[in-house]
Amino acid sequence: MKVFLNDRFLEAREAMLPIGDLSIQRGYGIFDFFRLQQGVLLYVEDHLARFRKSAEMLRLEVPYNNEELIKILKELSELNGLTDAGIRMVLTGGDSPDAWQIGRPAFMVVQQPFVIDPSPSEPKAIRIITHEFVRDLPEAKTINYSMGVWLQEKVKELKADDVLYYTAAGISEFPRCNAFVVNKNGEVFTPGHNILEGITRKRLLEIPGQPINIRRITLDEVRKASEIFLTSSTKRIQSIVSVDGLQVGNGKPGPVASLLLQKLLEAERHYIQSRH
Amino acid sequence: MKVFLNDRFLEAREAMLPIGDLSIQRGYGIFDFFRLQQGVLLYVEDHLARFRKSAEMLRLEVPYNNEELIKILKELSELNGLTDAGIRMVLTGGDSPDAWQIGRPAFMVVQQPFVIDPSPSEPKAIRIITHEFVRDLPEAKTINYSMGVWLQEKVKELKADDVLYYTAAGISEFPRCNAFVVNKNGEVFTPGHNILEGITRKRLLEIPGQPINIRRITLDEVRKASEIFLTSSTKRIQSIVSVDGLQVGNGKPGPVASLLLQKLLEAERHYIQSRH
Repeated sequence: MKVFLNDRFLEAREAMLPIGDLSIQRGYGIFDFFRLQQGVLLYVEDHLARFRKSAEMLRLEVPYNNEELIKILKELSELNGLTDAGIRMVLTGGDSPDAWQIGRPAFMVVQQPFVIDPSPSEPKAIRIITHEFVRDLPEAKTINYSMGVWLQEKVKELKADDVLYYTAAGISEFPRCNAFVVNKNGEVFTPGHNILEGITRKRLLEIPGQPINIRRITLDEVRKASEIFLTSSTKRIQSIVSVDGLQVGNGKPGPVASLLLQKLLEAERHYIQSRH
Repeated sequence: MKVFLNDRFLEAREAMLPIGDLSIQRGYGIFDFFRLQQGVLLYVEDHLARFRKSAEMLRLEVPYNNEELIKILKELSELNGLTDAGIRMVLTGGDSPDAWQIGRPAFMVVQQPFVIDPSPSEPKAIRIITHEFVRDLPEAKTINYSMGVWLQEKVKELKADDVLYYTAAGISEFPRCNAFVVNKNGEVFTPGHNILEGITRKRLLEIPGQPINIRRITLDEVRKASEIFLTSSTKRIQSIVSVDGLQVGNGKPGPVASLLLQKLLEAERHYIQSRH
């Protein structure tokens, strides 16, 4: 597998960063994750805009314009012979003389085969736990996932699939996904504070005929919800059927998540067709 | 300059980690910082104990026992011909196949010349700002300093030297230092929650004749303090003469910080002599 690192394509096993890089010494960097589906970079404009926003928030200069970035993404996919893949584009704080000051950012793109069912009939059902936490600089897609990685053992121990963060101000997000709650009246809500604004979340907010209210959501509302679901680029929509061991609704994926998944798939197909 | 990386000594410029390392992809890793003074590794037992505690908290296995670690630290200092240095020992989440699961940890030791005044007459005076924040897993010395690095520009803009974190529960710590507050009655306090337990802080708590109370400290108490100071391995004790632009006490290092600095220097000299 080839990767792109600091201006050139090379074999993944040869791609290394100096140990003085601020990502290694201080966990300082940002990234974005793209899905390549049927040869199309899904919602690439949104991901690039977010990548630039994250970089700006962390005061890191992106060394290419969008046209150049898309060229790199496409060329890498061609070199690897992949039409369906997950792609991570990372920008770090760079080699730092004192492990504190930002250096010249290191830029890399890595790719993994990733094939997704093009037309699932309903959302996957998953179980979650909750954990009180808020990410540093949550509006930026930083590389700092130490809590998310660390919590994986607890998630496994409790036979769950993911973990929802909350604070006294309410729920926020999953380590890699956004959260949505449906109340007994069928109204849909999603938090807007202390979150990374997901691209799949953005797509859902655009779906006509299904208003989604962005507001604070308490843990109590989560417990009383008739449906809860999450969104992400790799998972699309997954229905949460259990929170901290308590069943949600009837314990099966609900109608709102099912409907929104079909609408999301429609939008995806439309996007891919328009780019072919 | 030589470094130690995964079982061997090599030139710093040749020391690289694969870009799949979990420190680069997810900011996942821990470290500790040692001061080598007059050829003696200051409080090495405390630093190694903390390194192991941090590693355990992050579920990372330290690949050497303490005897082996001390041998590596000493051999590296000899190779670099240094008797006075700062030494960073880092353990990362290792090369991860999916940028999520913990791999086989990467272990490295890097060294920089660092000469410290052996007998300063009084604490340096510094200015600080405050920022609402708590680190992930604050009891572990993780590499995640994205907030600390990010805040440096704000610190400079406001002509300050450092930044004190606080939450609704009170003040906690600086990105790399512990905090102490002296009230009008000369009583000394330091927070015990949401902090990394510093080795210099530990030394202060051991000084006979100067009781230090570990308890919650509000921002209001900081504003009304007669003295505030910080401790760290590289800074020992620094007096804070301004918080968010407001003068502390008479705007000069106070008697408690000055006395504790002398006691700390005594303890240091005693430790170094006992190891020579």
